Amino acid sequence: MQANDAPNGGPLAGLRVLELGHFVAAPFATRLLGDLGAEIIKVEPPGGDPVRQWGARHNGHAPWWSVHARNKRCIALDLKRPEARDIVLGLVKHCDALVENFRPGQLEKLGLGAEALKAARPDLVIARISGYGQDGPYRDRAAFGVIGEAIGGLRHLTDHPPGTTDLPPVRVGVSLGDSVAGIYAALGVVAALWRRDHRQAPPGPGAEIDVALTESVFSLLEGALPDYGTLGTVRQPSGGGIATAAPTNAYRARDGVWVLIAANSDPLFRRLATLMEQPELLEDPRFAGNQARVANVAELDARIGAWAAGFDGAALEAALAGADIPSTRVFTVADCAADPQFRARQMVREVEDPLHGTMLHPGVVPRVDGAMPPPRSTGPEVGADTDAVLGGLLGLPPEQLERLEAEGVLRRNG
Amino acid sequence: MQANDAPNGGPLAGLRVLELGHFVAAPFATRLLGDLGAEIIKVEPPGGDPVRQWGARHNGHAPWWSVHARNKRCIALDLKRPEARDIVLGLVKHCDALVENFRPGQLEKLGLGAEALKAARPDLVIARISGYGQDGPYRDRAAFGVIGEAIGGLRHLTDHPPGTTDLPPVRVGVSLGDSVAGIYAALGVVAALWRRDHRQAPPGPGAEIDVALTESVFSLLEGALPDYGTLGTVRQPSGGGIATAAPTNAYRARDGVWVLIAANSDPLFRRLATLMEQPELLEDPRFAGNQARVANVAELDARIGAWAAGFDGAALEAALAGADIPSTRVFTVADCAADPQFRARQMVREVEDPLHGTMLHPGVVPRVDGAMPPPRSTGPEVGADTDAVLGGLLGLPPEQLERLEAEGVLRRNG
Repeated sequence: MQANDAPNGGPLAGLRVLELGHFVAAPFATRLLGDLGAEIIKVEPPGGDPVRQWGARHNGHAPWWSVHARNKRCIALDLKRPEARDIVLGLVKHCDALVENFRPGQLEKLGLGAEALKAARPDLVIARISGYGQDGPYRDRAAFGVIGEAIGGLRHLTDHPPGTTDLPPVRVGVSLGDSVAGIYAALGVVAALWRRDHRQAPPGPGAEIDVALTESVFSLLEGALPDYGTLGTVRQPSGGGIATAAPTNAYRARDGVWVLIAANSDPLFRRLATLMEQPELLEDPRFAGNQARVANVAELDARIGAWAAGFDGAALEAALAGADIPSTRVFTVADCAADPQFRARQMVREVEDPLHGTMLHPGVVPRVDGAMPPPRSTGPEVGADTDAVLGGLLGLPPEQLERLEAEGVLRRNG
Repeated sequence: MQANDAPNGGPLAGLRVLELGHFVAAPFATRLLGDLGAEIIKVEPPGGDPVRQWGARHNGHAPWWSVHARNKRCIALDLKRPEARDIVLGLVKHCDALVENFRPGQLEKLGLGAEALKAARPDLVIARISGYGQDGPYRDRAAFGVIGEAIGGLRHLTDHPPGTTDLPPVRVGVSLGDSVAGIYAALGVVAALWRRDHRQAPPGPGAEIDVALTESVFSLLEGALPDYGTLGTVRQPSGGGIATAAPTNAYRARDGVWVLIAANSDPLFRRLATLMEQPELLEDPRFAGNQARVANVAELDARIGAWAAGFDGAALEAALAGADIPSTRVFTVADCAADPQFRARQMVREVEDPLHGTMLHPGVVPRVDGAMPPPRSTGPEVGADTDAVLGGLLGLPPEQLERLEAEGVLRRNG
């Protein structure tokens, strides 16, 4: 699939966003904006975004790149060169927003700080994603996702209850802080563009959006902070379960498959006890009502676990579904890829990529007006769009592009 | 703090959003929109949103509510009553957007389906959050967060490596799927409002935004799906570490405190080995380069763990910081509340709540133009704003409000 400028019907068609990003957070923000119809121009160093080298290869390329850079036109510039800086400032004039995740202060050193950007385009919306934010005592610390997630308070809660095991608290198995920061940055960009552009008021200013990885994670902690501030309680992890509801946990079937069972209301617990052929559970005062079940959850989980271990996973899942008890095996990505609901809603679908052939892409979240527009393009090679973008938007002639390439200012065409 | 209509300078000031929500996802979406300046009207049943009863109480109220319903005007209506339905449709005429998380089909039964809402306000943006989406074979299933997170593929990845332990895969310690779905819904709402309102085009239509909890979680899986589709590899969990980098894990100090150490580049590993006074690590071919360290991560983690266990957590943290190695203890919410960076950026700050006194609220994410506007109001009691909203926006006179209250159609004033 080749990149093209045709609007895809997404709500953000007509917007143009420049990405000065790398790794996960800023590129994920622009991917979301591109999924919603915005035109995205990504600026990479001539060596490419490091994510191009992450993980296993297929046909010499990381499959993730196909998704991570879909709907993006990729141009390659050496930002340390003054001519590259001038090209970026030239592009900024044609853009509504810019998303970046350099370490705070880095763009200023390159002559691309907020002042320079706003001089080029006064109503630009600038989104800056960093580990700790653009000010404050930690501003200059290097951002590491796992560190930020721990400071945001999430790692502590993603663990078995104190005293259960000597194993360390688990990392959420994805770059959660980066991704959530990316979604927040996309939200901030669009909110600022609404303020700038809405017709009920005179044309408005641009904006600076400041998203910290630590704060994005911290924002997910629900009642933990207000509870601590009023009551002094410090929220603790609850392993595979939920501290306030039982039974709700993962139980292992005979073949090793983990199956989640959420049967914490009285009617659901009654159905489960009946399915287990253990009516005595319903007479036992230790399990009468959610509060009692929570107090005796270890014993209850042990009983359900012993029962579950008598079935293979598929049989266990079928039995629970037959009894209308909320449940599911724990999905691997292979399960996700085969899932009828994900397939029916095109959340998993086949996409043609010139670098990979037919492959699977996740769909667009959020879905707008029931549409699931296909990607306008898949992640291209380094510099694939340098000529088209700089020739088209800035009118740089081929001779100049050749000269700039020879001088190492930019890279063209993979 | 009392609710008021004064704009707070957030970018969404001037927008009015109706929430027909409960639990986490839809209320979190509107909280984010309210944090960014939109006026939020929340419709609750006369018994109140169930979240009012969640967790511990302070002064008879759940502290979380203060945050979860901040910047919202709360009115209480029994939506099963036709007069309540008509009041909602009357309010919709005055609103730009509506966010709901009923089970698909439920609002239609109440006479508040998309057709009815759009008849009242043709350019309304409607965001619908559900477990599995508004169509497809799973549409009618009950939404349970833990089930959706497992189907979205995240639970499988949040675990120790296969064979490490008999304990179940861990739940991310918050309602992650609900929260991420809420952020996506907020993004969809604002994107659709930009399309509707931007001055470069004639006034546009409303929109229907469809966000599924399962899909929101699945969207976070990075390269897992494209890797599976091209290479057939099924991503597996990696416990406290990262599958592709070492050493990066949590290590337990003598006093039980877990400390994260991210020393997976060669220079950082050199600093760590020096700090550990184990220069032989640098000569050992098993630990030469990240790839070798990943292959021998169990041995490496055991050595670092043995070293870490010789210090108390505070001393360990100080030693690592002194050697400029990215690291942190695993923060509890008490650590977050005391953190100088969170405090400096007002991500943790004191707020006055008439129900609780001085308490702690998290700040606003994303931060716009460096501002951290204080909440315009804290979560109020059930029906606190019924009179003001229905009297103000709809012009219902006091006698009618009294009659409707007597008839059980609505509830006023806590």
